[in-house]
Order: sequence, then C-alpha cells, then structure tokens
Amino acid sequence: MSVTAAQGFTAAGVAAGIKAPGDGGARRDLALVVNQGPSTAAAGVFTANRVKAAPVVWSEQVLKGGQVSAVVLNSGGANACTGPLGFQDTHATAERAAEVLGLNAAEIAVASTGLIGLRLPMDKLLPGIGTAAAELSPHGGEKAALAIMTTDTVHKTAVARGDGWTVGGMAKGAGMLAPGLATMLVVLTTDADVAAPELDAALRAATRTTFDRVDSDGCMSTNDTVLLLASGASGTAPEAAAFAGAVHAVCADLATQLVKDAEGASKDIRVEVTGAASEEEAVEVGRSIARNNLLKCAIHGEDPNWGRVLAAIGTTSATFEPDQLSVAINGVWVCKNGSYGEDRGQVDMRFREVTITADLAAGTGSAVIWTNDLTADYVHENSAYSS
Amino acid sequence: MSVTAAQGFTAAGVAAGIKAPGDGGARRDLALVVNQGPSTAAAGVFTANRVKAAPVVWSEQVLKGGQVSAVVLNSGGANACTGPLGFQDTHATAERAAEVLGLNAAEIAVASTGLIGLRLPMDKLLPGIGTAAAELSPHGGEKAALAIMTTDTVHKTAVARGDGWTVGGMAKGAGMLAPGLATMLVVLTTDADVAAPELDAALRAATRTTFDRVDSDGCMSTNDTVLLLASGASGTAPEAAAFAGAVHAVCADLATQLVKDAEGASKDIRVEVTGAASEEEAVEVGRSIARNNLLKCAIHGEDPNWGRVLAAIGTTSATFEPDQLSVAINGVWVCKNGSYGEDRGQVDMRFREVTITADLAAGTGSAVIWTNDLTADYVHENSAYSS
Repeated sequence: MSVTAAQGFTAAGVAAGIKAPGDGGARRDLALVVNQGPSTAAAGVFTANRVKAAPVVWSEQVLKGGQVSAVVLNSGGANACTGPLGFQDTHATAERAAEVLGLNAAEIAVASTGLIGLRLPMDKLLPGIGTAAAELSPHGGEKAALAIMTTDTVHKTAVARGDGWTVGGMAKGAGMLAPGLATMLVVLTTDADVAAPELDAALRAATRTTFDRVDSDGCMSTNDTVLLLASGASGTAPEAAAFAGAVHAVCADLATQLVKDAEGASKDIRVEVTGAASEEEAVEVGRSIARNNLLKCAIHGEDPNWGRVLAAIGTTSATFEPDQLSVAINGVWVCKNGSYGEDRGQVDMRFREVTITADLAAGTGSAVIWTNDLTADYVHENSAYSS
Repeated sequence: MSVTAAQGFTAAGVAAGIKAPGDGGARRDLALVVNQGPSTAAAGVFTANRVKAAPVVWSEQVLKGGQVSAVVLNSGGANACTGPLGFQDTHATAERAAEVLGLNAAEIAVASTGLIGLRLPMDKLLPGIGTAAAELSPHGGEKAALAIMTTDTVHKTAVARGDGWTVGGMAKGAGMLAPGLATMLVVLTTDADVAAPELDAALRAATRTTFDRVDSDGCMSTNDTVLLLASGASGTAPEAAAFAGAVHAVCADLATQLVKDAEGASKDIRVEVTGAASEEEAVEVGRSIARNNLLKCAIHGEDPNWGRVLAAIGTTSATFEPDQLSVAINGVWVCKNGSYGEDRGQVDMRFREVTITADLAAGTGSAVIWTNDLTADYVHENSAYSS
C-alpha cells in the first residue's frame, strides 16, 4: 500500500515538531518520499486557485522539467500567503533535502498543508528532513501517509496492480474539498517504466473525473498538489490504456476516501446528473447542487427536499426546460417533469450514502459529483479553532 | 409604516389556514394589498432563478402592463414546481381577488412563499381572500407584514418620507437569501404620482445595490418578488432623484432587516471590496468571500482567519496580483500584500457586526455584499424540518 507499494521507492514519516504535540505526544508532521530510480519521470497537477502557496509555486516549476527524485511534505502549516520569505522557506527545504539525499534541489518537489498565513518553523522542519532521511525505508509508506494528516481522522492509501507493475499512493484531505482540486496532498508512485508526457496525460485524465469531482464544501485550497512519480524499477512498460486505468483506479479510491472522511460529515452524497447537453453542463449542474447549503442541510436531516435541488439547478446556465426536469433521491423519482412525482415518503435515507439523480432531459451528457451534507459538526470543526 | 404608510392603500393580513396552526393557534398566512388609486402604476423585479414559481410567472406577465391594482400574498406554500395545476391555482387566486374586489384579474399580482413542490390548499386560500377583503384597512399594513412571514422571527417594514409624499414597504425573508434576489417577498407602496417606467427605473436601481447584494447563504429562491405600487394619492410628482433616493432608502432598510434576521445567524458580515478593476469585479469577489463556508464558520468562531478570505478571492477571475492583496477584519489589516500583516490578536470580533475589507489594488471599483456566519443553528433550522 501507499507510496512504497511500487518498487524503487523509499519513504518515511517523522515528528519534526512542526505540529503542536497531541494528546499522545509528538505527532508525525514531515514525510519524505524518494524515487530510487532508475527513472525519475514525474507529473503533477496543482490547485487552480490563483492564490498559490509557496510550495505549489516551487513544485510547479520543478515539474516543468518532468523529473522528480524526491518529495518533502509537511503538515502543520500551509506556507501560503507568507510572501517572499515563505518562498525562501520552501527553497531552503528543497535545498536541505538535496544536501541530505545527495540529489539536485531542482528535482525535489515540496508540498505543505495546514493553516494559511503563518511561516513554517524552519528550525524544526530542516532538522526533521535529516531525521526522515535516516528513517527512509521501502516499508515507510504508511508512516509517510500518517505524517501528512491534518483534520483527517484516518490516513489514506491505495494500490492497483498491473501485470508486473504497480501504482500506489497516499492522500490527505478532509476539509476545503472542492475542485481544482480538493484540498489535498496526493503522492502516487509507480514502478512502471513510463515517460513524463505519458505520466502527465494519465494523471490529468484521472484527476479530471476523480479528485476534481469531489466538492465537499465548495472551498478551494491554496495548496492542492497531486504528484505521480515513476521509478521504472519493474522494468515493465505497460500499455497506455492499462496504465491510465490503474492511475484512475488509485485516484478514484483515494477520492472516495476523502469524501468519506470529510470534516464533520454524516452523509456522502453522490450527485448524478444525466440527460445534460454536454459533460461540461452536467458538471456545472452537479456542482451547483453539491454546493447548495440548504439542500446539504436537508440531506443531513434525511429530508428528501427535491425543491432545493430544482432551485439549485435553476441558478445554472445549463440547457434545460424547467418543466422537463426530473429528480430522484435514492432511486425514488420524487420530482417528474418539474413537478412533484413519486411519494417522498418512499425515500429511505437512513444510510450514509445518498444518491441524488437529476435528469435534465436535454441530451446525453452526464457526470457524477461527490459531496457531503452540512452538519453542526462541520460548523464546530471549522469555527472552534483556526485551521 | 409598511404598505399602508402611503396614502391610497389598504391592506389586510388574515389566518386562512394555509399554514398549520402554531403554538398560539391559527397563524396569519394571507395578505392583501389594494391600491385605491387614482393611479395604479407599478413595477416589479423577480427572481433570476430559471425555475420560477407559478406566482412569479403570473406576476411577471401582469407587470408587463405596468399596472397593478392589488397584490395577494400567501405564506405556507411557495407554489413552485407544481406544474400546470399549480399555475391554475395562481390564476384562480387572481380571479377570486378580482371578483371580490371588483377589479380585473390582469392587474392583480400574486406572490407565494413556503415549501417548494406542494400544491396550495385552495379550499382554504380562496375563502381567505374574501376574509382578507372584508378586513382591508388603511391601517392594515402591519397585519399584512405579519401574514407573509415564514421562518422570519420578526416582521419587516420601513418607510421614507418625501416632501408631501411617502414610500413605505414590507418584506419577508430569512433563508435562501442570495442574489437575484434574496428569498423574499417585498411590496413597496407610494402615494407619489410616478408613471410605470420611472417606477421601474427607480426600483431596479435600488434593488441592484440592496437586495441583490444580500448573500446570506448563496441559495437563490424560486419565488423572489419585489413590487412597487404607486397610487398618486398625494397629488405630488417628486423629482426623479428624490424619489429614487426614497425607494433606495426603503430597500436598504428592509435588506438590512433581512440580514439581521437570517436563519440561525449570529454575525452580520459586511464584505467590502475596494480597489477592484470594476464594480462588477468587486461584486464577484465579494460574493466569493461571502459564500466561503469555511470563512463563515471561522467568523462564527470569532477567528480572524484571513487566509480563507485570500483562498476565496483566488477562485475568482477578477483582476489582481496575489502579492498585492490586502485584507482587514474590523479595521485591522491582518493581511498586507498577500502576506501576514498586523497582529490578528488586535481584531475584536465580539460584536454581531463584522466587517471584512478586501483591497484588490487593481483599480477604483468597489462594492459591499452582506452575508452571515454559518452556524449550528443554521444547520438545525434547515435540517430539522422541511422548509
């Protein structure tokens, strides 16, 4: 599992003291993932937020070269909105890792997560890199996954196996989950022998319909980073379609884990839009439904309030006629042709997963957006302390 | 105060039995406002939601003629997403009012508010019109304002007086408060002698910078209706600017009352965007900030979490450079030039009103959007029962 499922990778996760100690003492807050090669081909996808954290600016630059030999990740601070000094901190992080590992800083990606607007405690972070390097192991993937957690309640890992090759990965993310991407750090590794352009194509195709369709709370992060590193250590060059399928599978698995662990959520809501004029319009409508606070509250209350679905659809520019919209909740078509349909009393909403299907009757486009309900726990978790 | 502050208007608010009885017995749920003339000039602004309730479709048609002699309003049901039969119900409502009042149905506007997707109990609503007509009075404005309440905790009225003429009004609205317009029914009346085109111009100008800039929860209603009726009973034709000013003042007063009574809110947040390339971009940025659930939770927790403001700005397409953004919370510039600024410990957030100022440093455009915090009470109020 995790980033060390594939051959050619070592990883570590240590407590560097960046995070304040928890109830159980020091918490892991620094992860290191190293690609031992022979290849160091890599691809990356980053937040679409125009306010980008320093490590995103740095890593985007690194990824332009298509080669990543190591990734340093920290929780306990996002290093976002920290100005030129914050960027220097990221640069120093890459330099220290390069020094410790005998690598080139230009091939070291950096990712951070935590509170925006605070400088990182570099007096703790830099020595932590040395500690992590000393603990690097082909079995270190789980510890690395633990070290990147913030408000996550569980660490997230996934793996998919091909014929002689493997794709594995880890993710963190529990809040600020919205497209472009959800708030998350993800590192995927593979021992397949795949060049950077093909890694990029597979990664973009996979994130477009997985992480980019998780819209837990409509809030887009400054730090989202998804990296895919290939060591080529299996000596196998898979077919493009098989490889893309494995990358998609791992992304889909991790994205589902993000939804299930979203801050304060009690329901996972699958918003399924069908009959759209295009996939793009289906996504627009799905997001509008997924972001409707009133609907998210209703789902929390196990109330199949389809009127709020229609009100959300009505704010979009998608192609539809109001009197041809139909909505099912958990398979019961409570709204048909823009008006009341089957008895809403038939809708069983006791389980955690809820499916809302909106049929626009305007074409054959479709999309699925994943979101969560809005709960008092979400409010508590996001108001009781800075995060 | 209310719709009978101006001469030439009578109103009533009665309990027709559309709403279920409350703790104190039957609740007012049907309001009637009648323009006694001599003029019946009128203007209206309606929801921008493409899923429009039957009474909105009806009243938009009525307003095309620029003449309204009476308005029937009900709470207890939105008559939205009720199909052709729902539209027949609205039509029958106007016909019954016309019959009882000796007027033409084509000059009777209808407005409804309440749960989407349920037919109105016409066996109660139609007789209620007769009851209301019998109670019409030049002092009936307060009762009419009471009859249109849904989750409102207080009824809302306002008045502005010119030189020999008056503009008054009533509003309801507490949830689904977002632009285009907020969820609300508003009836404004004036005894000024103003023709329909000038009423329309004054009303659109006023709503654009008042009701349209209230964005409590980002959810747009299917039923929003703002009407302005002029009786001409004062015999005075005010200057256009003075009249527009009075209409704006009443709209601003009522919009403020909507914000202060928003469902479950504990803070009223004034989002002030300055230095934008245009007013339009300032509004875009203001809305993005106002709709950020994480920020709304932070404000609830009295946490001056400016990083969430920057993250929200970063999702817009407005003109700005990330390293030139500055943010003040209650006057303390906690973010300067895209990075940490003054000590956030200086920010006093104990009071209900919170001001967030975002300076884009890109021009001279500015706008103010009003929103509320996100609270456990909001979740409770919108999940515990259908509304």
